Amino acid sequence: MLPFSRITIIGLGLIGSSLAHAVRAYLPTARVTGHDADPAVREIARRIDLCDDITDTAGAAVIDAELVVLCVPPGAMAAVAQAIAADLPADAILSETASCQSSVIAAIREALPSVTLVPAHPVAGTENSGPEAGFATLFQNRWCILTPPDGTDPVAIARVEDLWKKVGANVEIMDAAHHDLVLAVTSHLPHIIAYTIVGTASDLENVTQGEVIKYSAGGFRDFTRIAASDPTMWRDVFLANKDAVLEMLQRFTEDLTQLQRAIRWDDGDALFDHFTKTRAIRRSIIEQGQDDAAPDFGRHRD
Amino acid sequence: MLPFSRITIIGLGLIGSSLAHAVRAYLPTARVTGHDADPAVREIARRIDLCDDITDTAGAAVIDAELVVLCVPPGAMAAVAQAIAADLPADAILSETASCQSSVIAAIREALPSVTLVPAHPVAGTENSGPEAGFATLFQNRWCILTPPDGTDPVAIARVEDLWKKVGANVEIMDAAHHDLVLAVTSHLPHIIAYTIVGTASDLENVTQGEVIKYSAGGFRDFTRIAASDPTMWRDVFLANKDAVLEMLQRFTEDLTQLQRAIRWDDGDALFDHFTKTRAIRRSIIEQGQDDAAPDFGRHRD
Repeated sequence: MLPFSRITIIGLGLIGSSLAHAVRAYLPTARVTGHDADPAVREIARRIDLCDDITDTAGAAVIDAELVVLCVPPGAMAAVAQAIAADLPADAILSETASCQSSVIAAIREALPSVTLVPAHPVAGTENSGPEAGFATLFQNRWCILTPPDGTDPVAIARVEDLWKKVGANVEIMDAAHHDLVLAVTSHLPHIIAYTIVGTASDLENVTQGEVIKYSAGGFRDFTRIAASDPTMWRDVFLANKDAVLEMLQRFTEDLTQLQRAIRWDDGDALFDHFTKTRAIRRSIIEQGQDDAAPDFGRHRD
Repeated sequence: MLPFSRITIIGLGLIGSSLAHAVRAYLPTARVTGHDADPAVREIARRIDLCDDITDTAGAAVIDAELVVLCVPPGAMAAVAQAIAADLPADAILSETASCQSSVIAAIREALPSVTLVPAHPVAGTENSGPEAGFATLFQNRWCILTPPDGTDPVAIARVEDLWKKVGANVEIMDAAHHDLVLAVTSHLPHIIAYTIVGTASDLENVTQGEVIKYSAGGFRDFTRIAASDPTMWRDVFLANKDAVLEMLQRFTEDLTQLQRAIRWDDGDALFDHFTKTRAIRRSIIEQGQDDAAPDFGRHRD
């Protein structure tokens, strides 16, 4: 049984294009319609045969959809919701994949007050963006978090859950506010820190950018990966999940200040204790299949 | 021509054991003697046949060496230098692989005032530690930075350079103070930040550690890799390179505060401009062969 036989994806970046690939790979009889606001993206999507159909307007994409998934940056969600309002079938389910849910849900509900909304955020990605960055296995063994508002039809929730399971994800359901707090620490804080440190390193008087690049294997290169993520999406995420991000940044700064003080005052024991504690977390992540067990992320060895 | 026919490695952790493997792989006729202060490590090293000979004392290890390489944490360098003082041949070259050079060079010179010292720091590693973590290709296409003090015999420098090139590294020579500044930004700052964020994430009231682990693929898991590095070594590095690390932390905090303020005041343009700039750095790192071009570090895909 197919959870949906006509799926529309709006926004054909990394997540949207991966979902298109995954649906075609794992639910080959479902029809996938795609749309992107950028004509250049639509052209690429047509050339690589990403979907069964690519429409030039968002309205045309949703007109006979059973499920519409918005895969656009948080700041673009309200405009897309307005753009499809006239054409969205009354019985269609709307979903979106934003990394911050409370403000996105509020924006969509304002444009589409009576829509059946089942947000589904797959915690997966790479540093690449655009319609050619996607691949069918992106969601395999990753978690997808559903944040349906109170009172959402349980059948709609079950159908969206089924879709994500069929493309390889594990599914969890939580309320939007808790989702936003969890993602603030597991995703948004790491990204703002990585963006910061890469900026700091490229902006020194006494160490050249060439040196930073040359000796990046000492640890720095790890941070450059997520600091290469899509600027538009991340600008939107930080602004849309502002309160939780600022709260996590405050805690991070307190903890950093404590370690900085330990360095200044030669408190080796405090450093050693902290570094021993953080070691255990990685073991659990590997045990739970959320990262590669191979050293150095299994990076290629010559 | 072999640069050295008798090489002694003291400290058989990740770097020492990798060097032993590499010498045996790429200079198979050189004789490798090893020693580690920890009897359990010596026992493992013997069992896995890491070296031609494993001695029970540091003195016995160096007695007929042409080159002695100290691969111990910075805080252990002075004690090892004292331990080999009586047995080190007058014409032997001493090297060490510390990630911070100025204070380590000073400590060694105090114990061995007339030694020919050619420090050589390979900017390479994984998050694993111990005698079984090493592998022969660790140094392939990585940079090894030599920081010989002024007046060091150029022939000694050339021989150490030759050794590192033979095990696959590129070699650069710079003064110790500049090395310490470069490593503070490319290695020490990333490590203290990673250790901090992993601590912050595991210490929240409203998000459980289980949730942090489960949803770590959103970015957090990247930081857990280097936060799983050896606590003893990193305690020593931060204390031994204190001034440069504190300077980099100060700059990082200023930059983070600026981005935090942009988030608070909805300054999307400032965020977007910063995130666009940091993207370019990763491209350069990949172009120069210092990281894998595959998305997500080429992590295994199911």
